Amino acid sequence: MTATELTQRIRQKQSYLCIGLDTDIRKLPSHLLHEPDPVFAFNRAIIDATAEFAVAYKPNIAFYEAMGPRGWESLQKTLDYIPKDCFTIADAKRGDIGNTSGLYARTFFDPSAAGLSFDSVTVAPYMGHDSVLPFLEYPGKWVILLALTSNPGSADFQRQRIHRTGEPVGEQELFDVVLETAQTWATPDQLMFVVGATQADQLARIREIVPDHFLLVPGVGAQGGSLAEVSRVGMNAGVGLLVNASRSILYASSGLDFAQKAADEARRLQQEMATYL
Amino acid sequence: MTATELTQRIRQKQSYLCIGLDTDIRKLPSHLLHEPDPVFAFNRAIIDATAEFAVAYKPNIAFYEAMGPRGWESLQKTLDYIPKDCFTIADAKRGDIGNTSGLYARTFFDPSAAGLSFDSVTVAPYMGHDSVLPFLEYPGKWVILLALTSNPGSADFQRQRIHRTGEPVGEQELFDVVLETAQTWATPDQLMFVVGATQADQLARIREIVPDHFLLVPGVGAQGGSLAEVSRVGMNAGVGLLVNASRSILYASSGLDFAQKAADEARRLQQEMATYL
Repeated sequence: MTATELTQRIRQKQSYLCIGLDTDIRKLPSHLLHEPDPVFAFNRAIIDATAEFAVAYKPNIAFYEAMGPRGWESLQKTLDYIPKDCFTIADAKRGDIGNTSGLYARTFFDPSAAGLSFDSVTVAPYMGHDSVLPFLEYPGKWVILLALTSNPGSADFQRQRIHRTGEPVGEQELFDVVLETAQTWATPDQLMFVVGATQADQLARIREIVPDHFLLVPGVGAQGGSLAEVSRVGMNAGVGLLVNASRSILYASSGLDFAQKAADEARRLQQEMATYL
Repeated sequence: MTATELTQRIRQKQSYLCIGLDTDIRKLPSHLLHEPDPVFAFNRAIIDATAEFAVAYKPNIAFYEAMGPRGWESLQKTLDYIPKDCFTIADAKRGDIGNTSGLYARTFFDPSAAGLSFDSVTVAPYMGHDSVLPFLEYPGKWVILLALTSNPGSADFQRQRIHRTGEPVGEQELFDVVLETAQTWATPDQLMFVVGATQADQLARIREIVPDHFLLVPGVGAQGGSLAEVSRVGMNAGVGLLVNASRSILYASSGLDFAQKAADEARRLQQEMATYL
């Protein structure tokens, strides 16, 4: 999927909502625990209930990995079930030396490897270019690189001030350098950046550095970020935003009505997004 | 396992060799492909042949993940097969927001989750303290944090010069800040750092910042680092080094004699290490 196609789908659905399938087996409604694959049964119901309001789905791989081999089977069934008009994100935050990142790329992009064919994968930047480039060798597949994350620990390293020769001291922070450097590695048709919604005060500056790239924005909802503020500052001519919500949708109810309540919350977000488009 | 116990085992075996089980099904000797689980059959033979020369084994998770659910089964069997006197490292380079890192910690440390109970896991520092602390909640388990990696891309961000208020400009690089900050999170009984053998010119400086912590050093062998130089500069009173070799041992031969050739290479490294101890 190209950036232009993604923008078209956003305009058609009047939504830039990404739903995070952070499906924790310990939080599932109890009536699902009798299913042969409770995690997939939950995800299927969530997808059925929310697909008209979402343009993307993002399973966080940690939740599946923590269940061992059967978790990977639930992940595969979930990915296969997501409607083909939705953009899919493996939220894996991987990254290793070149030949090893190549294997992670195979895992998530090459269906003959682990049975998975996501549109994109999240990647951690710490190890630099050769840890990222192997993911970009798959035509039409995307890297979503961590830039400025939504958690408190983002202050520890991402916000460190960088001094580069010939530039004034303290003008740049590490995440600025990640944005500047990484955009030389790929076009806006293969590269997005993760920017937390709790970092909305930095979004204007980020938009100056990467005016054309899509941003994946987690942290609206349970983590406290503002959809209005993110949309006002982060949107560009091609929309350029995927805003993720996970827990506020998945666990809107723990009862028999969990899918209906999830649909209600997804619709509420979509309707708010429509007013910003 | 405590740091003192690890040092004792190193002295007993006269080895600080870690063997990286980066088992690529595309590189296995062809006679193993008829086995029901070729990856496990290969690992078992490698472990049998090398256990007397190694103090640690480090499966890189990418290699198993790329095979889907059956890869996780091969990983579990491999971990169960590693002798109990060896230190085990899940080379996963994970890291996410707090509750999600907690799930990655469960995956690798809590056998009731994914059937795995590694002694340690490698973690990427970019997301900061709350992405690392959940791994430290397991008594006796270790975090091995990326500091200065062996690959060319380590120059992109890890070597950026940091400016901190009140300090001279350009004295510190990002990896220094990672080392300084992270050692406040855990004692040398729960925290090691990854320092690539190709970065031996930085090792003296790293030893000044973290005099007491173990360092996991990849990059000797196929990547070109020098065991002599790493040992000379990196060793501390408790030895403080685990030096990893992967491809040079695993793929020393692609024939029927692969295990014997792996043993020869592991013995050669162990004998060189004994001269430095």
